[in-house]
Amino acid sequence: MLSAACCVMASKRGRDEGMTSHRPLRALEWVGERDGFLRIVDQTRLPREIRYLQLNSADEVREAIMHLKIRGAPAIGVAAAFGVVLGMRQARYRSAADALAHLERVVNALRESRPTAINLFHALERMHRLGHSIITAPEFQPQVNDLVLRLLAEAKAIWAEDRQMCRALAEHGAALIQDGMGVLTHCNTGALAASDYGTALGVLFVAWERGRRFTVYATETRPLWQGARLTTLELKWRGIATVLACDNAAGWLMRLGRVQLVLVGADRIAANGDTANKVGTYSLAALARMHGIPFYVAAPTSSFDATLPDGSAIPLEQRSPLEVTQPFGLQIAAEGIGAENPAFDVTPADWITGIITERGLIQPVNRATIAALLQSESPHKVTAIS
Amino acid sequence: MLSAACCVMASKRGRDEGMTSHRPLRALEWVGERDGFLRIVDQTRLPREIRYLQLNSADEVREAIMHLKIRGAPAIGVAAAFGVVLGMRQARYRSAADALAHLERVVNALRESRPTAINLFHALERMHRLGHSIITAPEFQPQVNDLVLRLLAEAKAIWAEDRQMCRALAEHGAALIQDGMGVLTHCNTGALAASDYGTALGVLFVAWERGRRFTVYATETRPLWQGARLTTLELKWRGIATVLACDNAAGWLMRLGRVQLVLVGADRIAANGDTANKVGTYSLAALARMHGIPFYVAAPTSSFDATLPDGSAIPLEQRSPLEVTQPFGLQIAAEGIGAENPAFDVTPADWITGIITERGLIQPVNRATIAALLQSESPHKVTAIS
Repeated sequence: MLSAACCVMASKRGRDEGMTSHRPLRALEWVGERDGFLRIVDQTRLPREIRYLQLNSADEVREAIMHLKIRGAPAIGVAAAFGVVLGMRQARYRSAADALAHLERVVNALRESRPTAINLFHALERMHRLGHSIITAPEFQPQVNDLVLRLLAEAKAIWAEDRQMCRALAEHGAALIQDGMGVLTHCNTGALAASDYGTALGVLFVAWERGRRFTVYATETRPLWQGARLTTLELKWRGIATVLACDNAAGWLMRLGRVQLVLVGADRIAANGDTANKVGTYSLAALARMHGIPFYVAAPTSSFDATLPDGSAIPLEQRSPLEVTQPFGLQIAAEGIGAENPAFDVTPADWITGIITERGLIQPVNRATIAALLQSESPHKVTAIS
Repeated sequence: MLSAACCVMASKRGRDEGMTSHRPLRALEWVGERDGFLRIVDQTRLPREIRYLQLNSADEVREAIMHLKIRGAPAIGVAAAFGVVLGMRQARYRSAADALAHLERVVNALRESRPTAINLFHALERMHRLGHSIITAPEFQPQVNDLVLRLLAEAKAIWAEDRQMCRALAEHGAALIQDGMGVLTHCNTGALAASDYGTALGVLFVAWERGRRFTVYATETRPLWQGARLTTLELKWRGIATVLACDNAAGWLMRLGRVQLVLVGADRIAANGDTANKVGTYSLAALARMHGIPFYVAAPTSSFDATLPDGSAIPLEQRSPLEVTQPFGLQIAAEGIGAENPAFDVTPADWITGIITERGLIQPVNRATIAALLQSESPHKVTAIS
């Protein structure tokens, strides 16, 4: 069993900096070098309290991911990469076989933290591949090795790529945002969900920086309120016009003509474009389609899973019914009542107008346009924005 | 300004009776005769606490309606009728003109408590009509009159009719419910929303009593959680299989094949069948339509407003953004963020498979079938249930 203990760092100073400087919080950062640690902001305490956690072991990273202290598909991929570093740093090996067995244990434990976002598995595969190649090399010496240093460099590379991805993706998508638009977004896809700007919210940040003026309709995103708790916070810091709404008001806001674009993130995209994202996305896409409103997904190429032909194969996390019946400790249902709590749903590809990636926009969304983008090396637009 | 003071009655005994007897709470009842009072259960405290309120003035009734201590279209109509009795009982009149002016004040104050449910206005009109006819009759004597007694008899008649309506409506609708069905319902439409069984939930109660076995999917119904707080309580008391879900999971549950019927209540139905109901109903109807799932409304004829040609003229209540940003005192959004909080939306008539009333089933839903039903005197089916 993995330990749940995390070290709590200074919170008062952090809170003041975060709330007054209008500088977005970082979801995560690696502090120091080989003996450093992963610092995250505990997102379960936002927006009321900004508290940083210092993660020093793979167990602590796993626990933080499982309990959504850190969440967002890109962010948990990066966190897991650093989790492998921490996990391998903790142990001493007598042999290559010993090191390899430990690597498997660390990677597998992190792999089981959450099932849906593919970024986690991509990052772990990459770390595993490197670790495996180092350990199985003839020159590997368990006592004197640079395994941790090289893993740390790889994790930092994944982190840096994620930061670059955020910027590139946001730049590509910003052209979609016009003055006067109402843009509806779901869950949180900003700086708190990734290493920098985020994905869907990042698009809005760049559009705002370019002088576009629009209104963001943020859905609260039950059961865990990432839209209410995190998205409104990020939009407020940047001074972006924001209106919060209950999830069940979204269709009516579309009917009233308030929404000209829907823009969401993704946790996993199948080869044909079917997209797993926070529960409620499926309904929003259906309603957008019915109202003739463009529906865009913003996701890095690390969110694609080319091994799955369509969305039916995406594993969808079921979370505790208590998140529904007792949100943040508030008992809202009769005692003993069961609840369905799917954390994700799958939106069919043909309901998606386009997918914004760090390499450009995929539009229309189908197997061929996705394959072409994933095979491309350099940033480019697959199709022009119509 | 109306006073907000309500007298709190014994709560411990009430709680034990209510929670252990499996006997549904009454939303309201008149206790005593001319000097009696209106007893309601404070629904803002459910499911955690069963507390009865004793209302002794029109002001207290108005306050209880405004703050949703009593809610549900049929229930607030009945409560308002008793509110007129209490309001007229409070005063002493020197002349008929004096009594008439007071009647206007009482009725108008109650009229302003909530804007959307038409039952409130129908009940108030009926009470006003009777009061006016008594006061303007030549034999009216301000000092010696039976005004209050006759108003009380009328309010009791409205109450009795509402109880009969619940039973008749439930009987008509129960035939729609088949074994093995998943029935999705929104908000609360049970005994807590009316004088007896309720409307949509009443249909399910009777079907269950007839031995049908099905599963009810109750949407939580943000912002005020009537589905989570009230509907799960009523279903639990009756031992009906119940699954709570977040509002934004409803579309996905439909996609997964869990839902074979959607059944909701109504706050006001226009002459063409457009139906105002709790926000979120519009989205559920759209999603049901997209998934080919029958969508039924259960509402008494007192919920129809024949004066409105269609739903665009229905006044829709906007409630405080705090209900969205601070549910039950829990701050879930960044400080200072605004919110849209429409309490109701309007579902187009052509998305509604049928309307279940105490006089029978309206199917298909259109101007002609509605007019025929409203003009009918005796209970009958307008069309057969297909």
